[in-house]
Amino acid sequence: MAHPPLHLGVPEQRLAEPPAATRATLTGLSDILHRADLLNDLAEVERQMLLRTASRSPLLAAAGAYTVASGGKRLRAALVLLAARLGMYDLGRALHPAVAIELLHAASLVHDDLVDHAGQRRGNVTVHARWDADVALLLGDYFFALAASELAGEPDPRIISFYTYAAQTMVEGELNPVTHIEPLATAVAQYYRKIGCKTAVLFEAACKAGIAVAGGDQAQIEALGRFGYDLGLAFQVVDDVLDYTGDEMLLGKPAGNDLREGTLTLPLMYAAAQSRHPLLRAIAGGQRPEPARVAQIVAAVIAGGGAARAMEEARALIERANLQLAAFPVLPARRALAEIGEFVLNRRV
Amino acid sequence: MAHPPLHLGVPEQRLAEPPAATRATLTGLSDILHRADLLNDLAEVERQMLLRTASRSPLLAAAGAYTVASGGKRLRAALVLLAARLGMYDLGRALHPAVAIELLHAASLVHDDLVDHAGQRRGNVTVHARWDADVALLLGDYFFALAASELAGEPDPRIISFYTYAAQTMVEGELNPVTHIEPLATAVAQYYRKIGCKTAVLFEAACKAGIAVAGGDQAQIEALGRFGYDLGLAFQVVDDVLDYTGDEMLLGKPAGNDLREGTLTLPLMYAAAQSRHPLLRAIAGGQRPEPARVAQIVAAVIAGGGAARAMEEARALIERANLQLAAFPVLPARRALAEIGEFVLNRRV
Repeated sequence: MAHPPLHLGVPEQRLAEPPAATRATLTGLSDILHRADLLNDLAEVERQMLLRTASRSPLLAAAGAYTVASGGKRLRAALVLLAARLGMYDLGRALHPAVAIELLHAASLVHDDLVDHAGQRRGNVTVHARWDADVALLLGDYFFALAASELAGEPDPRIISFYTYAAQTMVEGELNPVTHIEPLATAVAQYYRKIGCKTAVLFEAACKAGIAVAGGDQAQIEALGRFGYDLGLAFQVVDDVLDYTGDEMLLGKPAGNDLREGTLTLPLMYAAAQSRHPLLRAIAGGQRPEPARVAQIVAAVIAGGGAARAMEEARALIERANLQLAAFPVLPARRALAEIGEFVLNRRV
Repeated sequence: MAHPPLHLGVPEQRLAEPPAATRATLTGLSDILHRADLLNDLAEVERQMLLRTASRSPLLAAAGAYTVASGGKRLRAALVLLAARLGMYDLGRALHPAVAIELLHAASLVHDDLVDHAGQRRGNVTVHARWDADVALLLGDYFFALAASELAGEPDPRIISFYTYAAQTMVEGELNPVTHIEPLATAVAQYYRKIGCKTAVLFEAACKAGIAVAGGDQAQIEALGRFGYDLGLAFQVVDDVLDYTGDEMLLGKPAGNDLREGTLTLPLMYAAAQSRHPLLRAIAGGQRPEPARVAQIVAAVIAGGGAARAMEEARALIERANLQLAAFPVLPARRALAEIGEFVLNRRV
């Protein structure tokens, strides 16, 4: 299996902001997907997920249904389907990788929440908190098996390679914490390697799988893979920014959560590099933030321009991602993929 | 995907003991595999496993190499290869499911040991005890992904179906503890359902995958699947007997371990049904055995004939398994499969 190289570091190229009009038409992901006529197909993904997660074990069935219902945006399934729409679209074939990627994503979230001792996700109590650690462990395993099983329905073995490469990389990423915020260049490179493993590889796999099952050629698969990878990086940068700037009620988890957990992200790195604030200096020196100081540090990161600079970088990543779309015909699906980039930048949750 | 029905309950038919001469030629699994000229091919399985478990994460690489080195008999890989030898054998194709089944098995052991808080396996410290729970969780996930990835090399999607069905069933089994040892018929049925999920489905998958990649027809796949399932049941019954009668030094874990953990197995059920021993009556009444009493209960189970009766049943299962081999030509591989049945009954570890 050929492993695509990780795309590391900060993008060099900063492109101009897109016209404000582009963004004005966006009100949310479901609008984008509605305009691309994708909502019925995504409803079928949801239906298949519920069918698949039935189990002879009542406990697995209950915890599985709970996890599927806790949902999320199904952004990765949407990427599979939109990528497939750029080729010869056949919902019957595209469904397998679309369902599989959401099952794989759900499995990894259940296990990550267990490792991170997270009590909430998307405003819902996590599986290990609602049941226990054993149920979370076994439910994750069950979802991994369901995801693999789903791919038995798809004859192209490359899809399995894309997904298992992503699954392996996600595990490797979980064991590669970002350890320092200085020196800045090293910290930023470490951060991008981390989020590449944690988030971007799965976006990449989604896009590659979609165009592959729709008969795309190798160049198209690679182009959409790069699109997905950069989109995934931007998605995670924005996620990490929202941990500083976001609305606690909308996010379903407390702001400053990463700080509290000792997770070092891009806004903190940039703020610390630009600011003489004593609390930021202390963290740069390796101190773990005291819980009582988290609100102050969050304010210092925003005041120090860390969140704004991270957002600039997310925008540059989206611009770089969009360059890959130029090779495809101007179809509603291509427009939707570009709009998803804007959605990622503008989302509040 | 068609799910084979679980074979429940006690086999009806009791066949005569095979001639003692059959058993006299057996000295161990490696002799059987040597006679079948399988050792070189199994060495290749081992080499592939070590190659696959390399990781960019030093921690995963170390824990992965430790897990592969802790080894085991590679019985499941041997079943894949021997089943393939009953058809058109091509090592290049049979290797994928052989490597994948050992990776899947290793993943499930690492996770099971975590759920069961087991400190030792095969005389080695378990992964979660040597590293920690997070490493065990992530290593298991990594091995699951490696197993799935291995199957991307095999074009027949049925293999994925066999393996993911087994993986799902194993998780379901982990959540289905045996809760009572009385009434006997219910307890025995519950026990067979449990060990069917826990052990037999993977033996079944190994045999089906082997003959399938070797071009076997549906009837052959089903016949070898039944062979594997019954062999797996017998293997687990013997395992549970050895927990009462086995040599602690050979097993690499203390005798009476199941009792101590509250795991109710066949020898205990049969002994309790036949014995008026007050300690056995107390367990039948739902009492958890006191640690100080474990040695006494072990002795009572053996004296009460529980281990002997369970062994009779294991032998009947092997006889039933062997009936399935009759449809295949008398090849060295068929002889080896029959001998593995004898090995399972005679093993001390």
